[in-house]
Amino acid sequence: MFFEDTIAAISTPLGIGAVSMVRISGKNSVAIADKIFGGRVKPSVAESHSILFGYLIDPENSEKVDSVLLSVMRSPKSYTGFDTIEISCHGGIVNTKKVLDLVLSQGARLAEPGEFTKLAYLNGKIDLSQVEAIADLIHAKTEGARRASMSQFIGNLRNEVSSLRNQLIQLCSLLEIDLDFAEENLLIIDAIKINDQLSGVENQIKRLLSTYNTGHIIREGARVSILGKPNVGKSSLMNAMLQKDRAIVSHLPGTTRDYIEETIDINGIPFTFVDTAGIRDTKDDIEIHGIHFSKENIHSSDLIIALFDISSPLDDDDHRVKTILDGALLQNKTVKAIYVGNKTDLGEFDRTKFASEIGSDFINISAKSQSGIDELKKKIGVLFNSDVSFSSPMISRLRHKIALEKSIASLKMAKKSLEHNLSFEFVALDIHNAIQSLAEIVGEVSSGDVLNNIFSNFCIGK
Amino acid sequence: MFFEDTIAAISTPLGIGAVSMVRISGKNSVAIADKIFGGRVKPSVAESHSILFGYLIDPENSEKVDSVLLSVMRSPKSYTGFDTIEISCHGGIVNTKKVLDLVLSQGARLAEPGEFTKLAYLNGKIDLSQVEAIADLIHAKTEGARRASMSQFIGNLRNEVSSLRNQLIQLCSLLEIDLDFAEENLLIIDAIKINDQLSGVENQIKRLLSTYNTGHIIREGARVSILGKPNVGKSSLMNAMLQKDRAIVSHLPGTTRDYIEETIDINGIPFTFVDTAGIRDTKDDIEIHGIHFSKENIHSSDLIIALFDISSPLDDDDHRVKTILDGALLQNKTVKAIYVGNKTDLGEFDRTKFASEIGSDFINISAKSQSGIDELKKKIGVLFNSDVSFSSPMISRLRHKIALEKSIASLKMAKKSLEHNLSFEFVALDIHNAIQSLAEIVGEVSSGDVLNNIFSNFCIGK
Repeated sequence: MFFEDTIAAISTPLGIGAVSMVRISGKNSVAIADKIFGGRVKPSVAESHSILFGYLIDPENSEKVDSVLLSVMRSPKSYTGFDTIEISCHGGIVNTKKVLDLVLSQGARLAEPGEFTKLAYLNGKIDLSQVEAIADLIHAKTEGARRASMSQFIGNLRNEVSSLRNQLIQLCSLLEIDLDFAEENLLIIDAIKINDQLSGVENQIKRLLSTYNTGHIIREGARVSILGKPNVGKSSLMNAMLQKDRAIVSHLPGTTRDYIEETIDINGIPFTFVDTAGIRDTKDDIEIHGIHFSKENIHSSDLIIALFDISSPLDDDDHRVKTILDGALLQNKTVKAIYVGNKTDLGEFDRTKFASEIGSDFINISAKSQSGIDELKKKIGVLFNSDVSFSSPMISRLRHKIALEKSIASLKMAKKSLEHNLSFEFVALDIHNAIQSLAEIVGEVSSGDVLNNIFSNFCIGK
Repeated sequence: MFFEDTIAAISTPLGIGAVSMVRISGKNSVAIADKIFGGRVKPSVAESHSILFGYLIDPENSEKVDSVLLSVMRSPKSYTGFDTIEISCHGGIVNTKKVLDLVLSQGARLAEPGEFTKLAYLNGKIDLSQVEAIADLIHAKTEGARRASMSQFIGNLRNEVSSLRNQLIQLCSLLEIDLDFAEENLLIIDAIKINDQLSGVENQIKRLLSTYNTGHIIREGARVSILGKPNVGKSSLMNAMLQKDRAIVSHLPGTTRDYIEETIDINGIPFTFVDTAGIRDTKDDIEIHGIHFSKENIHSSDLIIALFDISSPLDDDDHRVKTILDGALLQNKTVKAIYVGNKTDLGEFDRTKFASEIGSDFINISAKSQSGIDELKKKIGVLFNSDVSFSSPMISRLRHKIALEKSIASLKMAKKSLEHNLSFEFVALDIHNAIQSLAEIVGEVSSGDVLNNIFSNFCIGK
């Protein structure tokens, strides 16, 4: 049913541009192309992966709609696996929409979001981790995020997960062979060896799991809150940090301010300033800000920059900031914090007193003169392990994390079953569950995996 | 020098989307593609108009940058006429920019705006009227604008201009043959016949010239100002007019409000409300508004909607509005005006008095209840000849208008020369000038045209 439809959509961003692309995929793609395309060669007789030059012609009135390049990609060698036509037409909103309308008028259905990729997945062209990688790639805001998602796309996560699964499948096969031969008292493996191997895989899963903190921050960006009393320079600090990096993203024509306004790139990780409206409102009363902060920002922040005026004595407001920060750190164990002393351009009051009353690890800056900003960024980079290798296997989504945690839990169960000398049947069942959880990451959960592996690898012929 | 470069640019709009396209054109396109593309087939050995699937690989570090479809189009069968590579990569701002950077790092130069089309024009792939049509097509805001620019793109204007030129070239040839045989006293044509033919062409040019008012309004949109006293319902009227039509353009995902905010589509013509900030500010004092209006809007408006409150007696403010409007109509002969009586939902005061004191042709509406809005739009449509055939030859730019006016002036000169019995040499010179002016429209000004035509058509063998 699902595969009966022919779907179409504008695949390029909508806006003013030289070229737009309308994609058609499904069994009627080529027939639809034949109906609307006028050129030297008909799409239906064109070879796969060839480009035809011609006009789109509306069959209703024979009017030339646009001059286009039409790409023919035949099943199964296409993105979706189905016959696919890509129409490269003139850009612009009205024109692109007209081309899409023409395609829809000839029997294609408007594609749902992500539906081409869904077809590719259902057709087995890509796995679920690649599906996610494609989404991440398109939304990447930094070079680091781009590299990490490309790494996942080319299969680094899938391969790692496959390796883990294969080890467990191998182990499971041994256990099940052992069960088969149990009556004959031919014990092939012992519990200690199994336990060791389970621990080995468990440690590898834990290692992969440990990439989550960095992985999800690379993907989603780290959320930064600046905490400080009024007029301490919160918005100046933000502007100082944005200033240099904004250039990196804004030298692209057409990049709107909204899109990148509060995101900066530190060593490939996007740092996004949350609730900047609040941050910018320097007239905010410190108590109100504190309440607001504790309610909304503590659980959403990955980094809190606590800002103090290093040129003046600490006052009650500063101590309240310190109290709010301490509370935040207590409530959210994963949030990181940095103490920053601003206004070094006005002199430095008493570093020792600051260190003893607030915290020893102060970074002094002047948001005004930009001094210390690079040091601050470096420090943030170190805090977030931004020397990470973006191309090594990494998990970036809660779904991955939960699946890995589930598989670890299953392995622990397996070890407990071993410990209690339960039948290998129970151990195998737990390992099966761990394999299933791992399979969820790439989206191919089939319990036939283990059995298939037994027959193909061992060929006992029983 | 110009043709030595290989240029590259992102050809799709920048933003979040499934696919982006980076285009490379110039003699090194294929060599650059070879350096960065890894697939089953090398671009340099691929056939023209074939699509290759593979990865872009950074030669610096052998890292896979993106999974792409790469289109190879060899000279001269490409948009520009030069070897062209189109890389269809994953979308997103960072990823697309990365792909462009990779291409630029291998020796392509970032293309200037419109440079691919410039190459196409310089290579003789398209003429100047098509260059303009492409720009118009991309920026079209209504279906009418799209159709008009497509009509120009497929050559409707060029063919019309060619026909005019050919008639003049023919005529010129006759005159020049006549000159050649003058010594031999073999007079082929007489002055009256020439005069008639010149008048014939002149009338055709005038007919084409007369399409300018509609053509440029289809292309650029008609600018509408709403004039009326405070609280007469100026912004309500605008909202009422936008309400239905906004849906037409805004059901496209990603269409930003800014882009279409004040433009509505009436029978294919875009009507843009100018200075809406002012229009919306209903607290504006009528005198200030009047001064403001006279200064800024009179010369930029194509349509003034003069709005009155039909439910109350006319007051001094209304008469001032009438005065401002009359002044505007005097100053700008091409601006059109419509009298509209608003607030029919509150009753109608005295239609006869309105007709006698303001104008007879009132349209009564209720912006609040939307009644009369369709009638108003219809009236606007009629005022702007929006029953025009979008696919007939039409000029839409001042450049065209000036060129046609110059050619008419030259034809008038020719006729004057004839009238004064000047030598055919002078007449021919004037006609040459008219031909030159027409040639400017399609951008091929070559004085060799006329001579070539003589030899090819007449073949006298002298």
